[in-house]
Amino acid sequence: MGNVSIETIMTQEPKVKPESNQLAFGTVFTDHMFTMDYTEGRGWHDPMVVPYEPITIDPAAIVFHYGQTVFEGLKAYVTEEDEVLLFRPEENMKRLNRSNERLCMPHFDEELALEGLRKLIRIDKDWIPNVAGTSLYIRPFIIATQPYLGVAPSKTYRFMIILSPVGAYYKEGINPVKIAVESEFVRAVKGGTGSAKTAGNYAGAMKAQEVAEAKGYSQVLWLDGKEHKYIEEVGAMNVFFKLNGEVITPELNGSILEGITRKSVIELLQYWGIPVIERKISIEELYEAHRAGILEEAFGTGTAAVISPIGELSWLDNKITVNNGEIGTLSKKIYDTITGIQTGKFEDPFGWRMTVEY
Amino acid sequence: MGNVSIETIMTQEPKVKPESNQLAFGTVFTDHMFTMDYTEGRGWHDPMVVPYEPITIDPAAIVFHYGQTVFEGLKAYVTEEDEVLLFRPEENMKRLNRSNERLCMPHFDEELALEGLRKLIRIDKDWIPNVAGTSLYIRPFIIATQPYLGVAPSKTYRFMIILSPVGAYYKEGINPVKIAVESEFVRAVKGGTGSAKTAGNYAGAMKAQEVAEAKGYSQVLWLDGKEHKYIEEVGAMNVFFKLNGEVITPELNGSILEGITRKSVIELLQYWGIPVIERKISIEELYEAHRAGILEEAFGTGTAAVISPIGELSWLDNKITVNNGEIGTLSKKIYDTITGIQTGKFEDPFGWRMTVEY
Ligand SMILES: Cc1ncc(COP(=O)(O)O)c(C=O)c1O
Ligand SMILES: Cc1ncc(COP(=O)(O)O)c(C=O)c1O
Repeated sequence: MGNVSIETIMTQEPKVKPESNQLAFGTVFTDHMFTMDYTEGRGWHDPMVVPYEPITIDPAAIVFHYGQTVFEGLKAYVTEEDEVLLFRPEENMKRLNRSNERLCMPHFDEELALEGLRKLIRIDKDWIPNVAGTSLYIRPFIIATQPYLGVAPSKTYRFMIILSPVGAYYKEGINPVKIAVESEFVRAVKGGTGSAKTAGNYAGAMKAQEVAEAKGYSQVLWLDGKEHKYIEEVGAMNVFFKLNGEVITPELNGSILEGITRKSVIELLQYWGIPVIERKISIEELYEAHRAGILEEAFGTGTAAVISPIGELSWLDNKITVNNGEIGTLSKKIYDTITGIQTGKFEDPFGWRMTVEY
Repeated sequence: MGNVSIETIMTQEPKVKPESNQLAFGTVFTDHMFTMDYTEGRGWHDPMVVPYEPITIDPAAIVFHYGQTVFEGLKAYVTEEDEVLLFRPEENMKRLNRSNERLCMPHFDEELALEGLRKLIRIDKDWIPNVAGTSLYIRPFIIATQPYLGVAPSKTYRFMIILSPVGAYYKEGINPVKIAVESEFVRAVKGGTGSAKTAGNYAGAMKAQEVAEAKGYSQVLWLDGKEHKYIEEVGAMNVFFKLNGEVITPELNGSILEGITRKSVIELLQYWGIPVIERKISIEELYEAHRAGILEEAFGTGTAAVISPIGELSWLDNKITVNNGEIGTLSKKIYDTITGIQTGKFEDPFGWRMTVEY
């Protein structure tokens, strides 16, 4: 793909960059974006870096009506030596293509998309914040653009990458969160779209989140859609439990998203020689482990927070506290190691980093 | 709401209207559209009829990433006396608000939306095709427009109504279709979004449709997501079976869409004194009924086709034929009656029609 040239159009109106220590999440966007179009019969064409601006799209576009769209989320960091690092970006591009497959959307060239991403980042490099904990959030996504009101795969698509400088997830140290176990709403079920990163999964999850927040919880713990019995994910994160020295995470069962942080945590634990098992785990088993005094740690994993320790769980008004509501030793060690690798402070024995040359 | 005025901006470039007998479905749009915006704190504002044209929207808009959107579908007909009729439009507006509720989207004034729809139809009245079987398809929808990459309800929305003249669904008489019973993919599950009309449900359904079509079937029959046992819907239609003189349709269980054609068919059967029962029905029971010789008719119901008779079912390579692959007497009578009421040929004892004065 080295042959495909990516045209660049520079903005004439650069925006004022926010202060690194005043950033929120996902509200500010950089000066440029990557776009590429797909037309049936012609394939993907016209990869470009252009000024960030609103797009013009037909009101009948399939994405608005039938939700044919997929997305990804990853981060770039700038090191103290002013190097720009990406964390396993090829995994995100692979997952995006897997999501495409589920949504009847066309496969794209992962190398070309990575090249587009690197080009975009080079151009907007000065937007990467450098205060501890901050990063540049990267959002690749693809939308169905054909104006057609029939329920059928679109004949045209647009691939875009937008960038947003984001603040530290943990501003005052890592505080474990309170989680409501969801026993009414369902995020996904086997045979559905849960293992793809597609818009509808998130639209459907908002209601449960709204109800949980109103009761004072940060997120919900999702149970499976068939029996409301087995643990699936927490909010938009995968979930891990340390039980009697052993780490357990729900196995990939077709309704759980295959998180890249999840994968990295598993690889890291294996590297450390700590037992880690992917298997079904029921909410009853978890409560039983708590009663038996062997539930040692619990945490969510995802790109945004990396590790999000769980301090309290509430299931049908039955509350349990994990590790006295404090972050566990292992959770902390995983967090420090992964963020250390991501930001270039630690060695990278796994080859997880990609340096963006500029 | 008679007080709210709906501003109108007329197009300067009217398009050429297609011939009534050369129409497809959902590819051609009229000259105008209805739009109305929502801003948190201010509510819905600026209802307008404006020229149909592409919209300008931020690439970070929540609808593209988290699929917060709902829609409706209904039809307008022009009678031989040049009257314009809508079929139960207030039911669509009610359902749109129910979908809003599930998707954490703001309630809108149904009367105002109907007023906007009538105003739009009056302006584009000449676009309503008048050949038998044709109609004007109406698509109200709401999209989340806030540029924000966090998974949370949008603070801004746009409500739109677009119109598309559509051809006859049955050009050469009603041909019963072949249906594949879906045993891998799942459309919806209780606790999910199946009973709302929202984009993600349709995106997730495309794959099953693609697989079924490749095997020579028109649509899939969806089974429940928990046990793959009970019948839910057929394609994007509700489904009915006549067993031994009695009509059965799956009960509304939280994952099935509450179809307006479904409701009308039930009311019509009750009016005729034909037993109609809403209850669970398993695919095994249906096959058993076929073996016993009491499966008399089967049909889907929805706005697009009104009635779509099922001629053949295939479940795990086990094929059965319904009514010799021909449309059943009752199916035909329901089809004729409902389309007769919709198009003004028959009396309307139920008060289902709304006349658009102009
Ligand atoms: C539903 C869901 N689960 C889990 C994850 C975690 O995946 P990752 O570690 O790749 O960010 C995400 C994405 O962040 C997600 O959206
Ligand atoms: C999933 C689904 N089921 C059933 C129906 C039938 O509903 P209605 O009769 O209101 O058109 C529709 C919409 O047409 C639908 O999208």
